[in-house]
Amino acid sequence: MLRDEKVFMAMALDLAMMARDDVAPNPRVGAVVVRKGRVVGRGYHERPGLPHAEVLALREAGERARGATLYVNLEPCCHLNKRTPPCTREILSSGIGRVVISLSDPNPHVNGKGILELREGGVSVETGLLAPQAFAVNRGFLSLMKNGRPFVTLKGAASLDGQIATATGDSQWISGAPSLKYAHQLRQEHDAIVVGVGTVLKDNPLLTTRLPGLRKVHHPVRVILDSLGRTPPDSRLFETISESPVWIMAGEHAPEDRVARLEDKGARIFRLPAGPDGKGLRLSSLLAALLESRLLTLLVEGGAQVNGSFLQERLVDSIRLVLAPLLIGGEDALGWIGGRSPKRLVDAFRFPGPLRTRRLGEDLLISVDLWDETLFLEKKLSGASGKG
Amino acid sequence: MLRDEKVFMAMALDLAMMARDDVAPNPRVGAVVVRKGRVVGRGYHERPGLPHAEVLALREAGERARGATLYVNLEPCCHLNKRTPPCTREILSSGIGRVVISLSDPNPHVNGKGILELREGGVSVETGLLAPQAFAVNRGFLSLMKNGRPFVTLKGAASLDGQIATATGDSQWISGAPSLKYAHQLRQEHDAIVVGVGTVLKDNPLLTTRLPGLRKVHHPVRVILDSLGRTPPDSRLFETISESPVWIMAGEHAPEDRVARLEDKGARIFRLPAGPDGKGLRLSSLLAALLESRLLTLLVEGGAQVNGSFLQERLVDSIRLVLAPLLIGGEDALGWIGGRSPKRLVDAFRFPGPLRTRRLGEDLLISVDLWDETLFLEKKLSGASGKG
Repeated sequence: MLRDEKVFMAMALDLAMMARDDVAPNPRVGAVVVRKGRVVGRGYHERPGLPHAEVLALREAGERARGATLYVNLEPCCHLNKRTPPCTREILSSGIGRVVISLSDPNPHVNGKGILELREGGVSVETGLLAPQAFAVNRGFLSLMKNGRPFVTLKGAASLDGQIATATGDSQWISGAPSLKYAHQLRQEHDAIVVGVGTVLKDNPLLTTRLPGLRKVHHPVRVILDSLGRTPPDSRLFETISESPVWIMAGEHAPEDRVARLEDKGARIFRLPAGPDGKGLRLSSLLAALLESRLLTLLVEGGAQVNGSFLQERLVDSIRLVLAPLLIGGEDALGWIGGRSPKRLVDAFRFPGPLRTRRLGEDLLISVDLWDETLFLEKKLSGASGKG
Repeated sequence: MLRDEKVFMAMALDLAMMARDDVAPNPRVGAVVVRKGRVVGRGYHERPGLPHAEVLALREAGERARGATLYVNLEPCCHLNKRTPPCTREILSSGIGRVVISLSDPNPHVNGKGILELREGGVSVETGLLAPQAFAVNRGFLSLMKNGRPFVTLKGAASLDGQIATATGDSQWISGAPSLKYAHQLRQEHDAIVVGVGTVLKDNPLLTTRLPGLRKVHHPVRVILDSLGRTPPDSRLFETISESPVWIMAGEHAPEDRVARLEDKGARIFRLPAGPDGKGLRLSSLLAALLESRLLTLLVEGGAQVNGSFLQERLVDSIRLVLAPLLIGGEDALGWIGGRSPKRLVDAFRFPGPLRTRRLGEDLLISVDLWDETLFLEKKLSGASGKG
C-alpha cells in the first residue's frame, strides 16, 4: 500500500464527517474514487434513506471509475433488506478495479461478506488503512453493533494523587488552559454529556462546547442525573436551552412539582428506575434513552459518584484522564472515582494494555481504550491474503 | 562540541561512580584525558583525603597531557583550605589545552572560580556536557550544597485514581514486574531508605536491593520511623542485618524495653523529637542524622502517612510515581498521600514544569524533579562565551 493512499483515505474520512448528526444509527461513511492519482469522484452518506457514499462517488466518476481505485472508510454493504441497493453491486458494475477499506462493517448482514463479494467479482480489496481514525469517526455506531448501547467516554481531571478537590471542596483550578480546551473538544466530539445534579448545584455549569474560532460548533445534549429533581430552575443550563437540549433524568420518586417546573423551563423529563443497589438511577436505562434518540456517544463528566457508578456498572468504553502537576494529599480530599472500593484488589477495574500519554500544556493526558479498532479489522485467513 | 565527546564524558561519569560509598560528603568525580581522540589518562576520586580525579588522570597522561583535552563531570577545585592541592594549578601546569566540564561546583569556595582560573591561565573551557547525568551522579552532594540536607526521592505505586489499597487493605499487587524491578533499582541508587512502622507491621518487608544478575549490589541503610518502638523484634529486617544496617527512629516517649530489644537485634536506635504538630517525628532531625553518617540520598517508600509528612514539610526533591493501569475507586480506598489536604487548592503542592513519563511494562512511570541540573550550569555572562 502506498504511503500517499493515506491522503485519499483521510479525504474519505473528512467526507464521512460531513454527515448530518441524524445520520445515526447509520455509520458515517465517505468515499473517494481515484484514477491515476487524481480524484474523480467523491461522496458521503448524509442520513438514513439517502444514497450511500460509494454510490455518490461512483456516480460523479462515471466512466472514469473503470479501472480506478475506491477509498471508503467502512466495508461496502451487500445486503438487500433496506431502502438503498447494495453498494457491492454498484461497485462491481462500475468497473472499479480496486477497493481500499479502513474497517469491516460489524453489521451481521455485512461483516466480511461485502469484501468477499467484491473479491469474487474480481475486484482487488485491501483493508486496514487509517483504521484508528476510522474507528474514532464511527465509535458510536461500532459500540451499538458490539454492545447494543452508546459509546461511553469517562473524562476526569485530577491531581497526581487522583484528587479533584480539597476537603473543603475547593477545586478551582486543577488543570490548565490547554486541558480546558481539550475538555471542550471532547464535548464537540460527543452526542451527549452527562453530569450528576451535585455538579450542577456546586458549579452551575453550562456544559456547552466553547471553542472560539471553530467554524461548526456542536453542543452535546446535556443530561443531568437528578433522581430527586433538585436541578435549580434558574440554573444557567436553561439560559442556553436554545443552543442545546437539557434532559433531566429523574427518579420514580422525584416530586412532580419540581419536575414540572423544570419541564416549564424547557427541559425534557425522563423517569428512570433506581440503580442496582436501589440507590441512584439505572444507567442502562439512561443509555437506552440516548439510543432511542439516536445519540450514540456519551461523555461522562462526573462528579466522583457518577464516575464511580459508570465504572462499577462496567459501562465505560474509554477513559480520558488529565493529571495536573500537583499533589493535594490527605485522606480527606475528594478522589475522582467515588462509591465503594472492591474488597479485593483482583476485583478492581484493570485495563488491558499500556496507558497512552500526551502532554496538554503542563498537564498530562492519560488515555485508556477498553476496546478499539482491532476488533473491526478484516480477519486474515491463513493462506488468504488481504492484498487480493 | 563534537558529538563523540559525549563518549568521553560518559567514561568520566563511569569512573566517578567507582568512588567508595564513603566518598561523601565529597562529590563523585571522574576525569579522562584525551589526546588526538585517544584516552591517555583516567582517574576518579575514591574518598576524602585521597587525590582528586583530575590529578590522577593527569598523572597517568604525563607528557601526553600537553595540548590534550580533559573531561571532568564537576568543575575542578581551586581552593587551598583542604587536604589536597587545588586541581586548577595541576591542570595549568600539565599543559592541558582544553577542559570540558559537566557542572559547576556549587561549593562557595569554587562556584565558577575554578573555571575562571583555568580561562585566565589560557585554557579553553566548555561546560554543560551530559549535565543531567552529572546531576544524577552527585544529587546528594548538590542537595547538601543547595539545601544543607540529603536529597529526598518520594516513590509511590498507585492505581490510576491514586489509590494504594482497597478499603480492606488489599494492596497486592498494584504494579507489575518491571515496576518492581525499577523499585529495586531506586534502592540501588539511594544511600538510605525510609518507611513507617505501619509498613513494617503490615508487609514485613526486607527493604534490601534485589536485582538478580547485578555485579555490585548496594543495599540502602534501612530506616524505620517508629515513634513508639513497635517494630517487631522478629521482623525480617533483622534476618538480613548483616547485609545492611537497620536504624530505628524512635520518639522520645518510646518504651525503653522495646527499644532495647531492637538494639539487641542489631538495630541502631535514634531518639527524635516530635513533628511540627506534636505528632509523629521531626523529619528534619532524621535528615540531620543521615547527614551525620554521610548518607546523602534518601528514598521514601511510604506508607501514605509518611509520604504525606515529607510532602507537608516540603522535604521532597524528586517524585517517582508508578501508575498501574487499573482503577480501584471508592471514597474508602487508601490514597498514596496521607495526612490532611490543604483548605485551599492554591496551597496544594504544585510542581514546576511538565511531568515526564516513561513506560514500565504496562505501568506508567511519572517523574517530577523539583529542581535539577540547570541550577549548576555555568552562568553565561553577556559577551563572555563558554567556548573559551
